[in-house]
Amino acid sequence: MSTAFPEDSVGLVTPQIARFAEPLALACGRSLADYQLTYETYGELNASASNAVLICHALSGHHHAAGYHSVDDRKPGWWDSCIGPGKPLDTNRFFVVSLNNLGGCNGSTGPSDTNPATGKPFGADFPVMTVEDWVNSQARLADLLGITQWAAVVGGSLGGMQAMQWTISYPERVRHCLAIASAPKLSAQNIAFNEVARQAILTDPEFHGGHFQDQGVIPKRGLMLARMVGHITYLSDDAMGEKFGRGLKNEKLNYDFHSVEFQVESYLRYQGEEFSGRFDANTYLLMTKALDYFDPAAEHGGDLAKTLALAKADFCVMSFTTDWRFSPARSREIVDALIAARKNVCYLEIDAPQGHDAFLMPIARYLQGFASYMKRIEV
Amino acid sequence: MSTAFPEDSVGLVTPQIARFAEPLALACGRSLADYQLTYETYGELNASASNAVLICHALSGHHHAAGYHSVDDRKPGWWDSCIGPGKPLDTNRFFVVSLNNLGGCNGSTGPSDTNPATGKPFGADFPVMTVEDWVNSQARLADLLGITQWAAVVGGSLGGMQAMQWTISYPERVRHCLAIASAPKLSAQNIAFNEVARQAILTDPEFHGGHFQDQGVIPKRGLMLARMVGHITYLSDDAMGEKFGRGLKNEKLNYDFHSVEFQVESYLRYQGEEFSGRFDANTYLLMTKALDYFDPAAEHGGDLAKTLALAKADFCVMSFTTDWRFSPARSREIVDALIAARKNVCYLEIDAPQGHDAFLMPIARYLQGFASYMKRIEV
Repeated sequence: MSTAFPEDSVGLVTPQIARFAEPLALACGRSLADYQLTYETYGELNASASNAVLICHALSGHHHAAGYHSVDDRKPGWWDSCIGPGKPLDTNRFFVVSLNNLGGCNGSTGPSDTNPATGKPFGADFPVMTVEDWVNSQARLADLLGITQWAAVVGGSLGGMQAMQWTISYPERVRHCLAIASAPKLSAQNIAFNEVARQAILTDPEFHGGHFQDQGVIPKRGLMLARMVGHITYLSDDAMGEKFGRGLKNEKLNYDFHSVEFQVESYLRYQGEEFSGRFDANTYLLMTKALDYFDPAAEHGGDLAKTLALAKADFCVMSFTTDWRFSPARSREIVDALIAARKNVCYLEIDAPQGHDAFLMPIARYLQGFASYMKRIEV
Repeated sequence: MSTAFPEDSVGLVTPQIARFAEPLALACGRSLADYQLTYETYGELNASASNAVLICHALSGHHHAAGYHSVDDRKPGWWDSCIGPGKPLDTNRFFVVSLNNLGGCNGSTGPSDTNPATGKPFGADFPVMTVEDWVNSQARLADLLGITQWAAVVGGSLGGMQAMQWTISYPERVRHCLAIASAPKLSAQNIAFNEVARQAILTDPEFHGGHFQDQGVIPKRGLMLARMVGHITYLSDDAMGEKFGRGLKNEKLNYDFHSVEFQVESYLRYQGEEFSGRFDANTYLLMTKALDYFDPAAEHGGDLAKTLALAKADFCVMSFTTDWRFSPARSREIVDALIAARKNVCYLEIDAPQGHDAFLMPIARYLQGFASYMKRIEV
């Protein structure tokens, strides 16, 4: 580990690749003949393999959750505030596994990879994934790593949905589930925002029905708009007000349509453009569909308690007061169902101004509650 | 009046056109050499011209607020529930004037009209309008109609901003101001949503820098996306849940990106497509800019009470509990400033599930409060 990194960092990490040759049957009825998952691990797996924790990522996330990729790397992984020695996911105690989901665009098999059947990129021919599919693919990674049972499966937002699904699909393989800033299913408004993002991408003339790579182009405009809409829903009204207010980029108004006038416009355009240069449009569509489809209660007539009765895990649910994408009320639905299902559940509603994005932030009460729960887990 | 219309309808109405040959100086520094306003009137102006009420419209509104355009017309004006004999804006008492704003696309001079300087459509060369500009143009319409002072200026949303601006720009000409589901200025989040809508239009390849008419095309995709985003903000999360929930259009999921799967998707696409066929893209941009720019307190160092101290009108402010575009908190800012400025103000917060759109709906307590306030106005 380089001495240049902070003491509570996992330090230098190297992504690894796991290859799976056995076909994976998917919810859509199709299957993937073979695939690879890119992942990172932090900490050491103990002799009894009882200290493994799985991190599931959200919409635009990936495997690089903690540490640095080179000695010059200035930007640690996306959940570095929560993973490392002495941090909530304490790498002195736990062996933490973080992967890029199947269908992603950060090293795991996804739409931008070559379809062995055609020799061209999958593009829109890549199968639509569901949360259940991801959990099945993650179970194979667990097998490969020799992990029969996770000490905990942990995730925020869409990651929290995967953590919940684990307890339903593989009840024997999860001791603790931490679902943070999550929801038992999307609301009509949530789906509506996803649909705007999808339409932005689908109607971009450079999307070419999802086969833009064959044309050597990228649907940048669509991705940019999708990300802009997304970003508004990740931040609270208050957080945006605090950060930008009605502040102007320059001193006066331009009275035209195209100039950047307000700081919030500048921020959104930057976020949108940066994202459109690094994220795959088909992966974005796929992630929004996985979100829309997630509804574990549906198989039990909409009864979430009945669904969660299958679980054998203990649960920790956390939400943030100003999160309006997945508000505390949505987390309370999960908690209520768990109580009705007679499960052990711990619920923490954290006062935070940052909106949905709060789950990525180093908020004192959040880190403390998260750490306390993890400390109770025996390994 | 045709007997086919409901008894409390204003019946058959015919839009009228007012032409103005004197240049109108605008906030942007430019001026309009001449222009026309399309308007409708309901009821009769009394001898002393003391019973005139001005209706100001919101983002996508127009002059046709009440009654029908033909005997076969099935769809009355957009505020028909509030305008007519015995309704809150009682046409037995009041002479109601409703216009299409300058820069609009429903009969008043706007971007889709011919620029006399070039002989081609204005397109993006049409000057950006502000709420102040609109109020100035409306004052000229009042002059033309022989109305020295409005009994009331009334509007919802962006219309409420115009009503407020009237009391500041022309204090002697307004006795009552009714600002419904409005705000003293946009928040960063409000601006952010407008910016997404603008970027959707501006980046549509068929926008052609705002001169799409010259190319014989319409930026349909951009307008559709803009309207979809807008619609989400007009409805409450609850109203969307109530209306669509997670209902599917067909019985099962398709597992693809482009199908309409959830009912809310179908609704949004329909709204977007319908809108993109009837609304001008440059007008949409212009309306969002007028919203962003509105900030009457700015001229008094951000002190809204100081600004509203200029007014001589009495005020009625109304808001709706589930409106998250312009929440009750935003209306209370107006009320607090009016109290600080020692104005007469009446505030009604109406329990309604419909979100921002509630101001267009026939909600009993809303209609009753609105009617009560109007009855107190002497003419």
